[in-house]
Amino acid sequence: MDIASKQLQHQETLETTAHEIAALLGKQQLIQDLSRRQSSSPKQEVLDTLLTRQHDAELKARLHKLHPADIAYVLESLPPEERDRLWNLIDNRERGAVIMELADSVRSSLLDAMDASQIVQIAETLDAAQVPEFLSTLSDEVADIITSGLKQDRVADIHSTSGFPEDSVGSLMDQNMIRIREDMSLASVMLLLREKQDLYQSFDQVYVVGENNVYKGCVDLKHLLFNPPETSIREIVEQDRLAFFTNDPAVNAVSAFERYDMLAAPVLNIHNQVVGNISVNSVMDFMDESREIQQLKSVGLSEEEEIFTPVWKSARNRWVWLGLNLLTAFFASRVIGAFEGTISQLVALATLMPIVASVGGNTGNQTVAIMIRGLTLKQINRDNVVRFFIKEANVGMVNGLLWGIAVAIFAYMFYGSYALSLVLLMAMVACLLISAAAGVFIPYLLSRYGRDPIMGSSVLLTAVTDSMGFFIFLGLASLYLI
Amino acid sequence: MDIASKQLQHQETLETTAHEIAALLGKQQLIQDLSRRQSSSPKQEVLDTLLTRQHDAELKARLHKLHPADIAYVLESLPPEERDRLWNLIDNRERGAVIMELADSVRSSLLDAMDASQIVQIAETLDAAQVPEFLSTLSDEVADIITSGLKQDRVADIHSTSGFPEDSVGSLMDQNMIRIREDMSLASVMLLLREKQDLYQSFDQVYVVGENNVYKGCVDLKHLLFNPPETSIREIVEQDRLAFFTNDPAVNAVSAFERYDMLAAPVLNIHNQVVGNISVNSVMDFMDESREIQQLKSVGLSEEEEIFTPVWKSARNRWVWLGLNLLTAFFASRVIGAFEGTISQLVALATLMPIVASVGGNTGNQTVAIMIRGLTLKQINRDNVVRFFIKEANVGMVNGLLWGIAVAIFAYMFYGSYALSLVLLMAMVACLLISAAAGVFIPYLLSRYGRDPIMGSSVLLTAVTDSMGFFIFLGLASLYLI
Repeated sequence: MDIASKQLQHQETLETTAHEIAALLGKQQLIQDLSRRQSSSPKQEVLDTLLTRQHDAELKARLHKLHPADIAYVLESLPPEERDRLWNLIDNRERGAVIMELADSVRSSLLDAMDASQIVQIAETLDAAQVPEFLSTLSDEVADIITSGLKQDRVADIHSTSGFPEDSVGSLMDQNMIRIREDMSLASVMLLLREKQDLYQSFDQVYVVGENNVYKGCVDLKHLLFNPPETSIREIVEQDRLAFFTNDPAVNAVSAFERYDMLAAPVLNIHNQVVGNISVNSVMDFMDESREIQQLKSVGLSEEEEIFTPVWKSARNRWVWLGLNLLTAFFASRVIGAFEGTISQLVALATLMPIVASVGGNTGNQTVAIMIRGLTLKQINRDNVVRFFIKEANVGMVNGLLWGIAVAIFAYMFYGSYALSLVLLMAMVACLLISAAAGVFIPYLLSRYGRDPIMGSSVLLTAVTDSMGFFIFLGLASLYLI
Repeated sequence: MDIASKQLQHQETLETTAHEIAALLGKQQLIQDLSRRQSSSPKQEVLDTLLTRQHDAELKARLHKLHPADIAYVLESLPPEERDRLWNLIDNRERGAVIMELADSVRSSLLDAMDASQIVQIAETLDAAQVPEFLSTLSDEVADIITSGLKQDRVADIHSTSGFPEDSVGSLMDQNMIRIREDMSLASVMLLLREKQDLYQSFDQVYVVGENNVYKGCVDLKHLLFNPPETSIREIVEQDRLAFFTNDPAVNAVSAFERYDMLAAPVLNIHNQVVGNISVNSVMDFMDESREIQQLKSVGLSEEEEIFTPVWKSARNRWVWLGLNLLTAFFASRVIGAFEGTISQLVALATLMPIVASVGGNTGNQTVAIMIRGLTLKQINRDNVVRFFIKEANVGMVNGLLWGIAVAIFAYMFYGSYALSLVLLMAMVACLLISAAAGVFIPYLLSRYGRDPIMGSSVLLTAVTDSMGFFIFLGLASLYLI
């Protein structure tokens, strides 16, 4: 399997390919369904089998031309049954490369359907550096079986790179690095590089280590290239390059790579020994994945939810969020319940009250969005959070007055009561001020106390704006209108 | 200014530095405020000036040690006045590097406060490759003035790289590339590289061009290094590497860089001439920025909104969204208005109706989140959108029944009416089915017709779930309860 020979695809070409493969699989399904439904003649069955084989051959030929990352893309966009069928057509030697490119949820659903000996076969085709990540997606029992089934040379590295917490730099690191000793000369380094050239896709710098593999610094490739061969590494090593420790949070690596346009950095253990390399590509993957997970989490979904998660699992995934939302809805409902007497005297209140709550929730969510961006970029801190609140409160005041007047005019058109319109205006302004406060301080406090502000901010905000919106509007109404 | 000598910082260190700088600026502000308030003695004034100068010196010393990207970070987290004060302390020769690292909104607010001659000074310190991006943040008039003020050698490249649409590959490309002719020998290429080594930070591959700068392929650095010097480039060029055209959408580059773990790729014009280079770092920046913008746009905010946007501008930024939300709220309110007769006979309806609407909106937003992720990853297409809807409808059915029963029990506890509880249960199931449909097809249709599903999906969804929630619940109630 030579990945380098696979043609890389532009997005449009790839989409067409995926569509064509889905169509082929669909045709095949149709033939099978038909032959199952009609109790067909033996002749027909032979024909169907032939047709299926022909399609299989065509699919295999197409798959063979695709890069593993592209096969993974096609697999992810197929519904479960078609996905399993396509998976079975993939060459055994390519399955390892494909499986490493798949999203976690799809990867585990495919692995669940295979037995241990098949999984060992896949593990055998992986690079040593990929084995730990591969094992981490298996259950512990299966992982143990696989480990004992693997040849010894593949197990060696496992213990050194597995077991790092999910969001640590350690979990992102790989072994694609070249370590050299500081007492080497350039000439001998070049000899070493030439020997190892097939092992590494690309390298921009090599890491210099001393006694016991202790980190000493980096040497840029261009300094290796353009200094005289007798130069000693000690003369050109740069000691103040950024290095990470295995237990550094991965988000810190993300911000450093983004800020300084880095391509790779060494990863050290607590003894300052170089144990791995972190590359811009794994940082980018991590960044992308964690953003996606954040987006799902912000509406209470688990990161395992993908488009074809089975119905029952999917339904359960949503329970916590649904339960929380019902709880806040119940609470808001009880707030209204306390004013049933007022509403029965003036039923227009029931008609108008959702406007106040809805505008409060919406503007609050805008404040939350700016707040979360500020927190993510670490621009908001205790030095300026109050200033930001004052600004948001002013914005709420301006918009509450302006749009409150619009709402008041709307209400007057329908109910012809100045008093009712005035109560609506007052409620709008009050509600926007409260939603500014909730929009600033809910995410702030969540992040201050170590919680992820993305999760929970919007549920808590809606709880506040809904119940306060109803309370203020109905409360003012019972004071001034009844 | 030698950027390489600046110490790169880990996130925690940087946050501490930012905090200390903010504190220093705060102290300075305090002294100025005090001396303004008290009509102080001349002696006191001298003392204040001295103190201010001492602080300035300390701030300057600290700034001088920071990497331009870190100075940019500190500037972004400061409120406008402090930001301007710190900006004035930055060395003129470093301002260019800092300004290129700033977020657009902060960059333009600082540039707005400067006159043309100062801006020209900054432009002079930029790399030729950065000038076009710099000019693009200025208004056309100012840009023209600046262009005419610049030395000729800096203007040369402007016309070749400016003017690409914002989300095209062209807008992301830089000039950090090495072009070689296919008839060169390795030995002469190495000579060329050695000459140009200071011009380029790092290079992993060089681009091979033929007559008229027409693209022929790439050569990996390691092939340059480890083949005999008399080898001709023609023998080792790889012709099937992925290249982009200036008018390719930038998102396509993002997916290719992510999928294939690329570090750089050549950018061609329509004549297949190599006009630039696109690097993984600019792809990562673009990805990050567009995600942030998406998050803001999903709640109707403009990308220019940052934490310290002035109140009035900020208020206006939110009008479209507020207006849209009010419109949908008005509509939902009129739906309720149509049932005022029913509500006045059974006021419990007013208390319970927000529960139905709120649960519908929330589950719909979960469906939207999965849908948008699927659309972004291009996993959802016309082949499988209906299957996804069927799955979501089933999830809605399951959860509607389960949680509908919970809501029905809650209502029975308060109102003791079987009929009312049954109506509530039916309304919940119906509303969750509708929200599944809206959650799938609103984003799908928006993206099908070329709109960004992130913008507008949630407003449209809430419009549907709110008004349908009220309509179904109150409608069923007026049929069966009154």
